[in-house]
Amino acid sequence: MSLVKKSKAGVTFPRGFKAAAVSAGLKKSGKPDLTLVVSDVPAAAGALFTTNQFPAAPVLVSQRHLRQAKHHRGVLLNAGGANACTGEAGINDARNLCAHTAALLGCSPAEILIASTGVIGARLPVPKMLSALPGVVKKLRTDQGLAAAQAIMTTDTQPKSVSTSVRVAGTTVKLGGMTKGSGMIHPNMATMLAVITTDLGLHAAEIKPLLREACRGTFNAISVDGETSTNDCVFLLANGQAGSRAHLDSAAARKAFLGALTEVADELARSIVEDGEGAGKFMDIRISGAASDAQAMVAARAVGDSQLVKTAVHGQDANWGRILSAMGATAVIIKPERVRVDINGVPLVRRGVDAGTPVAQGNRALAGRNIIIKVDLGLGSGAARYRTCDLTAKYVAINAGYRN
Amino acid sequence: MSLVKKSKAGVTFPRGFKAAAVSAGLKKSGKPDLTLVVSDVPAAAGALFTTNQFPAAPVLVSQRHLRQAKHHRGVLLNAGGANACTGEAGINDARNLCAHTAALLGCSPAEILIASTGVIGARLPVPKMLSALPGVVKKLRTDQGLAAAQAIMTTDTQPKSVSTSVRVAGTTVKLGGMTKGSGMIHPNMATMLAVITTDLGLHAAEIKPLLREACRGTFNAISVDGETSTNDCVFLLANGQAGSRAHLDSAAARKAFLGALTEVADELARSIVEDGEGAGKFMDIRISGAASDAQAMVAARAVGDSQLVKTAVHGQDANWGRILSAMGATAVIIKPERVRVDINGVPLVRRGVDAGTPVAQGNRALAGRNIIIKVDLGLGSGAARYRTCDLTAKYVAINAGYRN
Repeated sequence: MSLVKKSKAGVTFPRGFKAAAVSAGLKKSGKPDLTLVVSDVPAAAGALFTTNQFPAAPVLVSQRHLRQAKHHRGVLLNAGGANACTGEAGINDARNLCAHTAALLGCSPAEILIASTGVIGARLPVPKMLSALPGVVKKLRTDQGLAAAQAIMTTDTQPKSVSTSVRVAGTTVKLGGMTKGSGMIHPNMATMLAVITTDLGLHAAEIKPLLREACRGTFNAISVDGETSTNDCVFLLANGQAGSRAHLDSAAARKAFLGALTEVADELARSIVEDGEGAGKFMDIRISGAASDAQAMVAARAVGDSQLVKTAVHGQDANWGRILSAMGATAVIIKPERVRVDINGVPLVRRGVDAGTPVAQGNRALAGRNIIIKVDLGLGSGAARYRTCDLTAKYVAINAGYRN
Repeated sequence: MSLVKKSKAGVTFPRGFKAAAVSAGLKKSGKPDLTLVVSDVPAAAGALFTTNQFPAAPVLVSQRHLRQAKHHRGVLLNAGGANACTGEAGINDARNLCAHTAALLGCSPAEILIASTGVIGARLPVPKMLSALPGVVKKLRTDQGLAAAQAIMTTDTQPKSVSTSVRVAGTTVKLGGMTKGSGMIHPNMATMLAVITTDLGLHAAEIKPLLREACRGTFNAISVDGETSTNDCVFLLANGQAGSRAHLDSAAARKAFLGALTEVADELARSIVEDGEGAGKFMDIRISGAASDAQAMVAARAVGDSQLVKTAVHGQDANWGRILSAMGATAVIIKPERVRVDINGVPLVRRGVDAGTPVAQGNRALAGRNIIIKVDLGLGSGAARYRTCDLTAKYVAINAGYRN
């Protein structure tokens, strides 16, 4: 299937990228919490950000820096504090961190992008972070991709660091990526933080369309808990170090690169859902036969976001009535008598009613870790895919005790 | 506050109403599961039903019967099976049950309304229910209101049976009501099943507008888990036995009756949320300062339906960032710098940022059972109130093991 692999090199896999991570004292555990990903040469950069109406300070500052500079040198990221809902003071904190990082790297502040994750509402401990920055810059190396992915973890149980290669216009182009996210995960933008690097040469204007296409069915079609965070962002940095011939100047080249980029995004997005807070099962919801793709996605989200469907999957109960009820509560065009539902290949609903499969057989279909829920609405050719996880007592425990 | 009281008489409190409940073998526990509420004389009836696109057979049959007959004699209700997503066979089952009940009462089938609750997708054990029906009718008495409320319980831990009186046009009019519901609770229509009786004389055409007004801020403004069920319905039966002078022929009379009806609906709706599956705390979300009432309700629902807000309340963690993030994920008009949040009178957010209250003091505000979350958006005069409960590991346990 995908040629994307879990990778220690991660964001430092493409030529000309370095990373480093240190502990600046933001995580109570004392683990690394401040990380920097840099390109040796100015790179083209672009990003997708959360649609939340309370965008965090690092989101606002990164958006400004993307407008202000034509090229960018790197992304500074921290866990242990979201710097969201912190007002003007939080924005000044983020700008201050970028300015100091830029001074250490010898570039302009606008060439530094920034991202944060953690509790909303608290100010960052900026003095601690500023005094840790020289150590981060000194530590920058080409083998610190995994360390960077570990430093941005919050409730994640696994670091998420991947890489791949693709032939573009006769040159081997490398891509690397890292992400974090486990709770407060919901489309638009789906994930918390992700950084994807490539040594392909790109114009800044090419990046956003590529990211949008790559994220539509990946980062923007996953959910853990229906919560769109204030800090979500996906960055793409392209530094051209693969060689001067590698450009997207043909449709074939663009297709090849977009395919690899989408695979990286897909692998990172999948790893977030698989590491969903408290998750025990991975749900892959595939709607077909809808009146349109958009309607299929509404139906898919209704099923995937339903607490009752998620708890039934957790309890290995093929209670298909909850799937129908969840879709029925939306405005999606549905003709009950045309609806079919299968779970992991076991038919549960035909013509909108019980398919006659014995309950025990239906429940056995939910015994594994990967649950494919297929729904055919029998109306048109609209289709969508949405990935999420089950809802467990552990999710409740994690989020009831998050700050305490 | 409200003059509505928990009541053993419940739906049999108004003059001329009787009820009965028996065990027809639908509940595994052997507890009563089949109940009938009847008026001695033909009553005016009306109802609000679920907006789910998979309406259950009893919903479809009751809607048909409300159109077919001018007056109605009663409502047959069962727990232990929703008769939803059962196709034409399920509709015939519901009609069959109505026809047999009508024969026993000496009325036409269309004068009987019907409601069911339980697992979706399974057929009802109709033969068992038909053989139990003569016993139900024989048992009809004026002191069986509480027994009827108990018979419709599923995961409810408490029966929900209330009554009140109100002066209308110089006559004392009585109202009684019962409801059930604990999970799969979400507006439009909010609740599973509710029956409200009154001995006021009403025209059938007057009932639906009254119900709509009474339910807008009550049954349609509560949620347990964001799941709109296939079976939701609220019935109102009015039999005129209070005396010939009690009619809604003046604005004052209508206002007095609507006030009492709304109080009954409010008490029943509140009792559903307070008995929410696994609930430990009762959340009362009050939005003000929105651009419109409709926008306020969208914001209120976003906060009340947020898994992260619900788990934070459960964990007694005044993590206000989750409240802002939940509202920010909607399209409601928000100016972050104008937002204020208070929980149980403790200021948490001013001008969209931390109000400076010590974290421990904020958390103490969540120590009790009743949590009032006030949000002022600072934009206009739009307001809304939404009531829900926290999300606990017990909810997950109940719904992971519902059928097993």
